[in-house]
Amino acid sequence: MDRRATERVTVTRVIGRGAGRSTIARPDDVIVEEPLSIQLDGTLVSTTMRTPGHDLELAVGFCLTEGLLADAPVLGVRYCSDETTAATDSNTVTVDTGAMAPVPSPRLGNVSSSCGWCGSEQLDELSARLDPLPASAPIELDVLGSIADVVLDGQGLFAATGAVHAAALFDATGAIRVTREDVGRHNAVDKVIGALALGGADLPGLPATGYGLFVSGRASIEMVQKAWAAGCSALVAVSAPTSLAVDAARRADLVLAGFVRGDGFNVYAPESPDASQQR
Amino acid sequence: MDRRATERVTVTRVIGRGAGRSTIARPDDVIVEEPLSIQLDGTLVSTTMRTPGHDLELAVGFCLTEGLLADAPVLGVRYCSDETTAATDSNTVTVDTGAMAPVPSPRLGNVSSSCGWCGSEQLDELSARLDPLPASAPIELDVLGSIADVVLDGQGLFAATGAVHAAALFDATGAIRVTREDVGRHNAVDKVIGALALGGADLPGLPATGYGLFVSGRASIEMVQKAWAAGCSALVAVSAPTSLAVDAARRADLVLAGFVRGDGFNVYAPESPDASQQR
Repeated sequence: MDRRATERVTVTRVIGRGAGRSTIARPDDVIVEEPLSIQLDGTLVSTTMRTPGHDLELAVGFCLTEGLLADAPVLGVRYCSDETTAATDSNTVTVDTGAMAPVPSPRLGNVSSSCGWCGSEQLDELSARLDPLPASAPIELDVLGSIADVVLDGQGLFAATGAVHAAALFDATGAIRVTREDVGRHNAVDKVIGALALGGADLPGLPATGYGLFVSGRASIEMVQKAWAAGCSALVAVSAPTSLAVDAARRADLVLAGFVRGDGFNVYAPESPDASQQR
Repeated sequence: MDRRATERVTVTRVIGRGAGRSTIARPDDVIVEEPLSIQLDGTLVSTTMRTPGHDLELAVGFCLTEGLLADAPVLGVRYCSDETTAATDSNTVTVDTGAMAPVPSPRLGNVSSSCGWCGSEQLDELSARLDPLPASAPIELDVLGSIADVVLDGQGLFAATGAVHAAALFDATGAIRVTREDVGRHNAVDKVIGALALGGADLPGLPATGYGLFVSGRASIEMVQKAWAAGCSALVAVSAPTSLAVDAARRADLVLAGFVRGDGFNVYAPESPDASQQR
């Protein structure tokens, strides 16, 4: 476990109520939350609150899954150094593509009209950027249903702090290939996908066709977008998906399973074959 | 319940494994997630993925808790209209201060140095913007410990979808004054605080001295910042706080309770009196 990922504080533990109440001071491990600034070719593209550790993977994964790289290669990724003192800044990471990635604009500046956009426009934008996923041998339902128990059993930071989300890549046999934990759900996913992009020796490359992505929380549109951008064939969430996540997964041809707990789960995408027959 | 807050989809429900597995198609209500663009005096300041409903409160609460208003009054808040068709855009809200609020800059543009910042700098910035909370009669421990059950029992969207977070304002007797649900934790909090800022007839005003804020998830630095900005005296979280949240709450003189479940909970701020005696 990364030393900086947890911090010990003294808390007052309260048990019971009224006349039967007792309080004691005791130590408690809390998860560390620190800002990470991510630069792409020297331009700040995000400041995210994250748990320190695997920061280079997080930066690369973020740039990739948010579509900032387009098709540019990652030539390098490093912590920023102060130009005068040469001290390393452990809260700023620079991703370098040799200026082959499009010049990033502040994300808020993407919306140029006086009015906003809606979910269907967001889906249209994703569809314009990402092709539907290629067909691959489907991952067995029994595998989709078993992943949550496997990942959650091994979640070290969660056991210590009760405060982090996990993301993991699994293969069609149900074997976990890489797991990352973070105070932010999206960060955990970016760290997993960044690890694939940076090409660890025993990891599959991208696109992750035939592999599934597991998330310990809910499946929002962000999670589907990231799984889609990485080319994963399935997304498995412990909790519920949102309406937009379901729509996006169906458009991506991404298998989306939710409420994967205990003995059952729901498949939200593809749409139920029974339902389509009823039409 | 807001009609637009949930959407019915057909899912495949999978029960059991292997030869004992059964699958059926059935309807399922999922929570709606749509982007909301928030403008302050005509400048876009955020696009957040939110559950539709209480959008005006969300926009005002966001501007207030993020410090964008400074001390400017909210003169009005409305949905944007298309200038040519006059159609209302239900995904864009404009907060109007008559240009008395500082001109907002894109939030990513706030970081001008080549390197990033760290959590302690973030706390310093908060401390510079917000005074420590005034002393008020402390909320009884029994009240802090009882809030989760009261709020969660009444959480309608969660019951329907299993996918939303709740935030609520409670008084020193444990009575809930306002509850809001949203797919985003921070949005639920902004909706509660925006409701106070907009001054409902039976709601307390701001600052909410002597009141507590409840959140159904974890307490991150964002949650403490928002409770602090609203002047709440306590923050109660069902799940764990982060290290930075604990530090911020201690600096704000905000009571921070976490893991409020079942028969017990932890008080993270103020720091344990026993612990300070041991020094």
